[in-house]
Amino acid sequence: MSSIKEFTKLVDVVLVENPLVHHITNYVTVNDCANICLAIGGSPIMADAIEEAADIASISSSLVLNIGTLNARTVESMLAAGKSANEKGIPVIFDPVGAGASKYRNEVTNLILKEIKVAVIRGNISEIKYISGISSNVKGVDASISDEDSDGVAIASDLACKYDCVVAITGEVDTVSDGERTVLLSYGHEQLSTITGTGCMCTSLVGAFCGANPEKIFEATSAAIICMGIAGEMAHEKCKEEGNGSFHAALIDAVSQMDSANMDSYASKK
Amino acid sequence: MSSIKEFTKLVDVVLVENPLVHHITNYVTVNDCANICLAIGGSPIMADAIEEAADIASISSSLVLNIGTLNARTVESMLAAGKSANEKGIPVIFDPVGAGASKYRNEVTNLILKEIKVAVIRGNISEIKYISGISSNVKGVDASISDEDSDGVAIASDLACKYDCVVAITGEVDTVSDGERTVLLSYGHEQLSTITGTGCMCTSLVGAFCGANPEKIFEATSAAIICMGIAGEMAHEKCKEEGNGSFHAALIDAVSQMDSANMDSYASKK
Amino acid sequence: MSSIKEFTKLVDVVLVENPLVHHITNYVTVNDCANICLAIGGSPIMADAIEEAADIASISSSLVLNIGTLNARTVESMLAAGKSANEKGIPVIFDPVGAGASKYRNEVTNLILKEIKVAVIRGNISEIKYISGISSNVKGVDASISDEDSDGVAIASDLACKYDCVVAITGEVDTVSDGERTVLLSYGHEQLSTITGTGCMCTSLVGAFCGANPEKIFEATSAAIICMGIAGEMAHEKCKEEGNGSFHAALIDAVSQMDSANMDSYASKK
Repeated sequence: MSSIKEFTKLVDVVLVENPLVHHITNYVTVNDCANICLAIGGSPIMADAIEEAADIASISSSLVLNIGTLNARTVESMLAAGKSANEKGIPVIFDPVGAGASKYRNEVTNLILKEIKVAVIRGNISEIKYISGISSNVKGVDASISDEDSDGVAIASDLACKYDCVVAITGEVDTVSDGERTVLLSYGHEQLSTITGTGCMCTSLVGAFCGANPEKIFEATSAAIICMGIAGEMAHEKCKEEGNGSFHAALIDAVSQMDSANMDSYASKK
Repeated sequence: MSSIKEFTKLVDVVLVENPLVHHITNYVTVNDCANICLAIGGSPIMADAIEEAADIASISSSLVLNIGTLNARTVESMLAAGKSANEKGIPVIFDPVGAGASKYRNEVTNLILKEIKVAVIRGNISEIKYISGISSNVKGVDASISDEDSDGVAIASDLACKYDCVVAITGEVDTVSDGERTVLLSYGHEQLSTITGTGCMCTSLVGAFCGANPEKIFEATSAAIICMGIAGEMAHEKCKEEGNGSFHAALIDAVSQMDSANMDSYASKK
Repeated sequence: MSSIKEFTKLVDVVLVENPLVHHITNYVTVNDCANICLAIGGSPIMADAIEEAADIASISSSLVLNIGTLNARTVESMLAAGKSANEKGIPVIFDPVGAGASKYRNEVTNLILKEIKVAVIRGNISEIKYISGISSNVKGVDASISDEDSDGVAIASDLACKYDCVVAITGEVDTVSDGERTVLLSYGHEQLSTITGTGCMCTSLVGAFCGANPEKIFEATSAAIICMGIAGEMAHEKCKEEGNGSFHAALIDAVSQMDSANMDSYASKK
């Protein structure tokens, strides 16, 4: 396994590069996604009109497609933006929120993966199992507990090979694979699952890290997931007696203070 | 009047049942609605595309329809989801945000009540008066002060009979009626009206409580409103010197730490 | 230059008048806009359906048009609402988010300025330079650093004359001009640029101040910008060691506690 520093040093590149991260995402967690992107040093732009989706994608450092509250209008824009990003070689990060939960989400997920070359797929185990064609036990947009015993390493690795991309499955243990290399990451805290948007925010961090480090998609994805996990631990540590509202603010606080030095320092304590 | 414990014990059922609460709601307060639903132990899913609205409703524990930022696309989805929920016997919670404030809101409110069998209507006194056909003094989405002297008990009870549902009017005193039984609840704090979304969040709590307790809609609605009120008092107590941003976070904190024991303990102190 | 008290006294008028501020705005920062509007004493209503946009505008105290996540549906509503406001003499505040960043944003910006008589344009220097026909260096929705050396006073003054309105350029120093009078304001803190929505929130404050003080658009705009700047300084002071999530909450806290007395007291210390 790679040294942790190979990953954590990439956070400083985000701070220097200030990547423009184009999001076409859901209206539930979009504010959190913008704020976490800013907190890590990226520059978010949310733009989902078909009249500008391809234009904005073409000038961005990365493109995040998140189907949390998809509809016909925004799906069309996702396809246009994705093709534009593909033409320019800009990495596309795909978050298949709720894949498996409705026929429509399934169709759109398949359509995006057919039409767009994605650099990263990040989802929970239920979503990734659906995409992999493995029967899963989806309940809404959260991972099913019964799916959590699946062999994430084999699933991530196989799916990464199939789509020639990086696959990240986040959960109690996070799995990141590019088909050849696979890392298991065990940062994070269960309180992350008690507020909405931590999956979406993680995907936005992947967008920022990949936008700043487009030649190192595997490492950048891993770094983003480590960053989110450590931030979750820090936020829990800071306000464990407080409740979910304070944890939410503390999570953004932690990401806004993250750099390679404190990521290394925190990781080495474990 | 029923014992307070008949209501408060229902919060523990939410924690056990983890109801899937389908929301078709506005984009202003949707993040808060998702977070408060998670905080009380529910699992929120926001899905408003016509292609999936009926599918998602059919697998949910309850459906929340909130017209805060309605438009033709989402109204169509509300009707489809509502009919799907009705077919499956899933409780539909209706929040007629701003009813009375524009001709369009009035038409959509009437259409929803005509086409969908709702289990609960929750609104402020101005909205409920509009629905009841009583002349009111609406100003935007907030209750008019001049409406607050109305006889909430009679209005709630009559409307509950008319639509064979539970009606909850929230304000300084909250009134919940199923036409036969009516309770007056005086939890809450005026600071709740100084941040956006406390009405919407209250409706989401009603969705979570009713989703977990579908045979006890009257009690579940009352419990949700007690929960919101107590959380408001706790949040004010925690950060009365701080201001609205801190109060907002503290409100979610309080709901995330709510169970029957501390609800009872808090209620008994009054 | 006018005395600071000529501006700060207007905050008390907002608290008394409780202006209804109609927003057609983006879904990224809309919750923050609603909360800051409430915090200063306004009553926000977000309504973007074409079926009600003109109706709602006609009963409001001011109208805020923000193109952060524009699309064909909401642009049509912006035009209808703007014309309705113009007919009634209700001030229209325009925030040209990302003008210059895409052909579509440029076209819509020009369309709004052609079809609607705006009372105030508030933007960053890159956006205002685009509108002024001066070549700028736009990157997404944030101001370009290379644009920050421009002569804001001349640009604001010229544009104010061209559209017979008040122009506010916010940045490290804020410039407000009605073409005849120009003030430079140096309140604020750089941390304001590390969270999303501070520009949008500033525009919402302008909406609240102008809604309550429609005969004093220049003074009201200046007061709103002073209010936002001072709130940013207070928030930074309160939680400088905490990070962006805490700063976000502290910013709303500060606005919710603002009145002329503490604005004056704070301003006099500088």
